[in-house]
Parts: sequence; C-alpha cells; structure tokens
Amino acid sequence: MKPNFSLRLRVFNLNCWDIPYLSKHRVDRMKRLGDFLNLESFDLALLQEVWSEQDFQYLRQKLAPAYPDAHYFRSGIFGSGLCVFSRHPIQEILQHVYTLNGYPYKFYHGDWFCGKAVGLLVLRLSGLVLNAYVTHLHAEYSRQKDIYLAHRVAQAWELAQFIHHTSKNADVVLLCGDLNMHPKDLGCCLLKEWTGLRDAYVETQDFKGSEDGCTMVPKNCYVSQQDLGPFPFGIRIDYVLYKAVSGFHIYCKTLTTTTGCDPHNGTPFSDHEALMATLYVKHSPPQEDSCPADGPPGRSALVSVLREACTELGLGVAQARWWAAFAGYVIVWGLTLLVLLCVLVAGLEAREVAVLLWTPNVGLVLGAGAVYLFHRQEAKGLCRAQAELQHALRRENESQGLGSEPQLAPLLAAGGRQS
Amino acid sequence: MKPNFSLRLRVFNLNCWDIPYLSKHRVDRMKRLGDFLNLESFDLALLQEVWSEQDFQYLRQKLAPAYPDAHYFRSGIFGSGLCVFSRHPIQEILQHVYTLNGYPYKFYHGDWFCGKAVGLLVLRLSGLVLNAYVTHLHAEYSRQKDIYLAHRVAQAWELAQFIHHTSKNADVVLLCGDLNMHPKDLGCCLLKEWTGLRDAYVETQDFKGSEDGCTMVPKNCYVSQQDLGPFPFGIRIDYVLYKAVSGFHIYCKTLTTTTGCDPHNGTPFSDHEALMATLYVKHSPPQEDSCPADGPPGRSALVSVLREACTELGLGVAQARWWAAFAGYVIVWGLTLLVLLCVLVAGLEAREVAVLLWTPNVGLVLGAGAVYLFHRQEAKGLCRAQAELQHALRRENESQGLGSEPQLAPLLAAGGRQS
Repeated sequence: MKPNFSLRLRVFNLNCWDIPYLSKHRVDRMKRLGDFLNLESFDLALLQEVWSEQDFQYLRQKLAPAYPDAHYFRSGIFGSGLCVFSRHPIQEILQHVYTLNGYPYKFYHGDWFCGKAVGLLVLRLSGLVLNAYVTHLHAEYSRQKDIYLAHRVAQAWELAQFIHHTSKNADVVLLCGDLNMHPKDLGCCLLKEWTGLRDAYVETQDFKGSEDGCTMVPKNCYVSQQDLGPFPFGIRIDYVLYKAVSGFHIYCKTLTTTTGCDPHNGTPFSDHEALMATLYVKHSPPQEDSCPADGPPGRSALVSVLREACTELGLGVAQARWWAAFAGYVIVWGLTLLVLLCVLVAGLEAREVAVLLWTPNVGLVLGAGAVYLFHRQEAKGLCRAQAELQHALRRENESQGLGSEPQLAPLLAAGGRQS
Repeated sequence: MKPNFSLRLRVFNLNCWDIPYLSKHRVDRMKRLGDFLNLESFDLALLQEVWSEQDFQYLRQKLAPAYPDAHYFRSGIFGSGLCVFSRHPIQEILQHVYTLNGYPYKFYHGDWFCGKAVGLLVLRLSGLVLNAYVTHLHAEYSRQKDIYLAHRVAQAWELAQFIHHTSKNADVVLLCGDLNMHPKDLGCCLLKEWTGLRDAYVETQDFKGSEDGCTMVPKNCYVSQQDLGPFPFGIRIDYVLYKAVSGFHIYCKTLTTTTGCDPHNGTPFSDHEALMATLYVKHSPPQEDSCPADGPPGRSALVSVLREACTELGLGVAQARWWAAFAGYVIVWGLTLLVLLCVLVAGLEAREVAVLLWTPNVGLVLGAGAVYLFHRQEAKGLCRAQAELQHALRRENESQGLGSEPQLAPLLAAGGRQS
C-alpha cells in the first residue's frame, strides 16, 4: 500500500419505515429510494425497517447493477428489518439478535416480534479490512416513563460488546443505524465509550441538513408531534459512527441529511431522515488515531458510564423480579381457585357457575405461568449484562490502579508464565 | 518472548448433570468435584449443566484459592448451565445464546427453557491471547428420528461463526463442551472445517481413559442403555478442540477421561465423563501450523460439508413452514367454529353447549396462534443460517475458482481501489 494511500467511502443510512399494510405510500417511497440509490451509487447503503422481504428483493433487483452484493438479515417473527446493499463484494456476514427486546404482551408496540439485531459485513477495500455494522434498537415510546430503558441499555451493551469482540482484526469500523437514543443518552454514551466509535455529526467540518442534525423532524409529513414528544424541533436518533483501528486515520469529510423531503422531488423517503457521509481513510502514525477512551479523562468517563449502566440494569432486574413474583402470586391464587371450583363441582353447589369459571381460570394460570417464565428470562438477561458490565468495571479499575501505563495491566496481571 | 517459549495449559471439561430436584447425589457429586478440582489445580475448568446458581456459588467459594477467577453464563429461563473457573485472571467475557434451541411445547425435553449458549473468555498468558469457549448444544433424544437435527446443525454453524469472528486476534483458541454430536456428525464436521479446530482425542499421542474416548459409557451407574441408544459400548459427544492461529504451534501432550468413576473413590462425578487435557503452545514458523481447511483437499471437504448443511437446513425450513401452515389452518378452523358458536348462542339453539365450547375454542385459537408465530420464527432462524452458509459456499467456490492461490481471492475480488 502506498504511503499516500487514501480510501473514500460514501455511506447511506436510512430507517425506511417499510411496514406492510401500515406505512403510508410504501411502494412509491421504495421505488424513489431505489432510484436515488442508483443515481448516487454509494459504497454502502445500510437500511433499517425493511420489514417486507419482497421489498428487499425488489430493491435487490433494481439496485443490482450499482450494488452487486446485498444481504437481508432475518430474525424474530417478522424479521430484523435490516438489510444492506454494497458496491463491493461482501466477504463475510454475521448477525447477533439482542437477548432482550421488549415484551410480547405489548403487542401494539411490536418490537418484541421483530427480533431486533445487529448485522455485520466484512469487506476488503484496497487490502483494508472494513467491518460495517447495521442495527436498530428498541423504540422509545415515552421519554417520561420509558419502560424499555433497561432493555435498550442492555442492547447498547450487547452491541458494544459485539463490535468490540468481532472487530479486533479490522482496520476500519463503521456503525450505522437507528439507535433510538439521543446523543447523550446512557446507552449511546456506553456504546461510544466502550468501542471508541466517533459520531460523524460531531466530527465533521462540513455538515449540511436538518437543524442540529436531527433525523426525525417536524417538517417531515410522516412525523407527528406525538412522535417527537418533548422535542418539538426534532430528535437525533440515527447515526453514522466510525473509527480506525490499526495505523489508519479516518475522518468524515461531509455529512448530509435529508430535511423532511427527498432531495429531488420533495416527498420524504421515510419518517426518518437519511444520513449520507463521505469518509476518508488514510495511513497515520499509531498515536494519531488513538481511541478516545485510552487517556485518563476517557477512562474516567468510561468508568462513570459503566457504573451508571450497572445501576440502570440493577433497577431493571428488580422490576423484572417484581413482575415474576407477581405472576407467581397469581398462579398460586389461580390454583387455589381451581381447587375451590373442584370442591364446588363435587359438592353439587353452584355447579354451573363452577363449570363456567373452570376454563377461564385454567387460562389465567397458564397466562400467569407464561408471564412468570418471561420475566424470569428477562431478569436472567439483565443479570447477564450487569455481570459483564461489573467485570469490565473491575478490570478498568484494576488497570487504572496501575497508574500511568494502563495498557500494560492485562499483561502484568496475567499469571502462568512457564517459558 | 523467548524463541524457546513454551506454555503448558491444563484443561478440565465436564458436563456436570447438576439439575436441582432431578439429578441423583447432586450435592455429594458437586462436593467431590470441588475437592478434585482443588487437588488437581487446572488452568481452566469448563463446566456444563450447572443449572443451579447456588451450586456455582458453592464451587466458586470452595475453589477460590486455586481458581481466583470464575464466571457463570446466565441465559434463557433456567440458565445456560455453563460456567468456568480459571487460575488466571479473565480479561474479557462474551456470550452468545443460540437462536434456535428446540420447541417450548416439548417441555419434557427442557432444552428450550435453558437458553443453550456459547461463552467466551479472553485470557492473557505470558503475553499470549487465549480465547477459551465453553458450550452445550441441544441434546439428541433419538438418533433414528432426530427432530432436532436442523436446530443442532444451525447451532453448530452459529458456534463456528461466533468462534471465527471473535478469535481473529487470538493466538490460541480452545473450545470445550458437550456438543451432543458424534465426531463424524454433520454439525461436528461443519464446526471443525469452518474453524480449523482440531480434536484433542484424535491428535494426542497419549490417551488414557474410556474405550474409543467415549464420554458416556455403560459402566457409569448414572447412564442407562436408553441414553446410549444404538451404541451400547458408549458415545463420544464431549470434546476438547483447539488451534493456534498466528505463529504458534499447539499440541495435546496427554488426554485423559474418567472411566465411569471418579479417579479417587469410584463413584462418578456425573453421567458424562470428564476430559482432562494437557496442551503445549510453542512458537512455530507460520507454515507449520496451517489451518487444515487451507489446502485443496481441506477446502473441498469444507465445500462438501457446507453443501450438506445447507440441504439439512433446507429440510428444516420446509418442516417449520409446514407446521406454521398447519397452525394457520387450525386458526382459520377455530375462528370459523367461534362464529358458528356465536350464531348458536344468538339463535338460542344448544346455548349451553355453545357457551361451554366458547372458552376452549378461544384457547385453541390462541394456542395455534402461538404455534404459528413460533414456527415462523423457527423458519426465519433456519433461513438466516442457510443464507449465511450459502454466502460462505459462494465465496469458497469463488476462491477455489481462482486456482492455486485461494488466499488471494478476497483481495482480488474486492473493488474500490482509490489509492
């Protein structure tokens, strides 16, 4: 590779709001999106909420000349909604489905049925290994009373861990997607601190688009004030994040968002705004592109966010256990009632009422059983994430305790030298 | 690191059969296991089927002096059953829960409720990065009519992919666990071909233990002839697999199994036999430890096993879709019956019977709905694994098509050179 090596990477990200039977002007929007992607010919187009596999196949066919490789990430009951179109051959594919993703009985929210996930594509561009991740986290339906906060923090941690462990051989890491978190939200900070990923909107010198980089804006005709909650001027929940790992330097030359309408004819592609980033990768001396969490201030921010996430997950565990216990009481109560009904039937007193109540009561016990099992599983999932966070926190504290050379800690701490 | 560097690694693996209320002599067995592990002081003890977190805590306390670090992998409703005790500090932890793991209505088999998973520990020993994986795959209840075959193949693929993508920076990879597969089973071949892992039993020059390395033997008093099925002399389903990745050479000096009784007083630790391996890691010239799948015969074996796995998953997808369709018909039939019952109630004919049938019928529709959703999710999961396999197969075929230098294929195939 030449010393003046430079790789340009043009990336497109959009939450497509492509829900069969529910989303407005779906067919027309997908057609226009396909035309736009063909016209612009990005290196990578990473999409979320493509919940119709037919629409993916339609786009695949339409985009085949400009984007010869594509992948649809299948998961859950309705799918993850994630897909990607690439101008370059995709070398490897991997997918991780988040352990926790809402509640099945909140069927009107629907997230549980989708199997929210993170997809990974490994590409080789000019001999450089690029790990591109696309994801979509659980939606936030109420900012004031967010019952999904613990799940979203657990998802952010799983995402951060997935990236951390699968990108160790990558030169460049790129994460695009709808994180359903504002830039300073706990999960977002956890993700950035643990992985060292940087936010294209914050880093770029040349931003064009909606005010404050918002990706859901009131000007978009598909967005209601209810969607924006206490932020009437818009929210920023879709991201392009990146980092270079080994001897490379990456920077975002330009970042553009749509502004409530498609760039050509005015009707929006989706209820979210699209992000379009032009990134440049160059060689750099090792110290130039150091991970933000490496210095003492970065490490202290990391420790603080790990602690906060631990606390939040602890609250989630308590809540999950409360619900499991409540369901347990309902089961006991239901079983007692069943015995009572049996006695009534045997004694011929109020026999008809007893027979009528028998089946709904069996249903109640079975339903409570399902709720009990679900929340036990939820508590296990949250405990697991909390245990991993505590382990990370312990290791961070240990390495900080060794003073000015934290990077030596793992080696010094390891035993078993027998050479 | 010195040129004559040599690292010895003593590893213990056991499926502990530690199921509260169900497993015989559980408390006594765990006590004796703890004593044995303390006495032997392995570098790593990787355990499966520790389904009581209390028992893990008991072992943790008991083993703390010899194994200062430990981790319990939580997942599913009852847990993954996986845990690990380490003489060296665990640097990092990650866990992946398998997407498919049997059927909830096969509750008497129980696997679905366990959240079978693979756990990863990253350790640094003498400056060398060791990725140690522990796992437990879905049980095989009938070899003649194995309804879980597609799920186990999908799990083996997920395991292989998880190892492949998370071990890119590792010097040594170690996988221990109960794979519930015989050495020549499809999933086992897929795992070994895709990851390049080698089987300690096959590789070692010094094996002591049960005949043919079996890990479930008729001599063990907890094993019934039914457990062994058509293999009355025993089966080998627990493994120690390993490989060295970058400039290192690893070999298994000795492998020992228990033989139906604990090495000291004759009563077995579990219904499975324990595996004890002594591995040595040394420096090597790069070509000495090449991955078995690198040469043309290895690659052809890989292509063949990828193809076979694709076919098996295809059968699984067809089966899952059949069940989803069947559940769909039951829903339609149930809904029709509900309408009929409404008509009967409205018309005052057979009112009592109609009222009595109403609730069970609602239950039938809801139950069929759950079965429908479950099998749709199953089909999605199998399709996902199949799509990944097909992608891997395509890439393998492409690289083989380039003749004698397959390792250059990814680079040659990649586009986008802009340097």
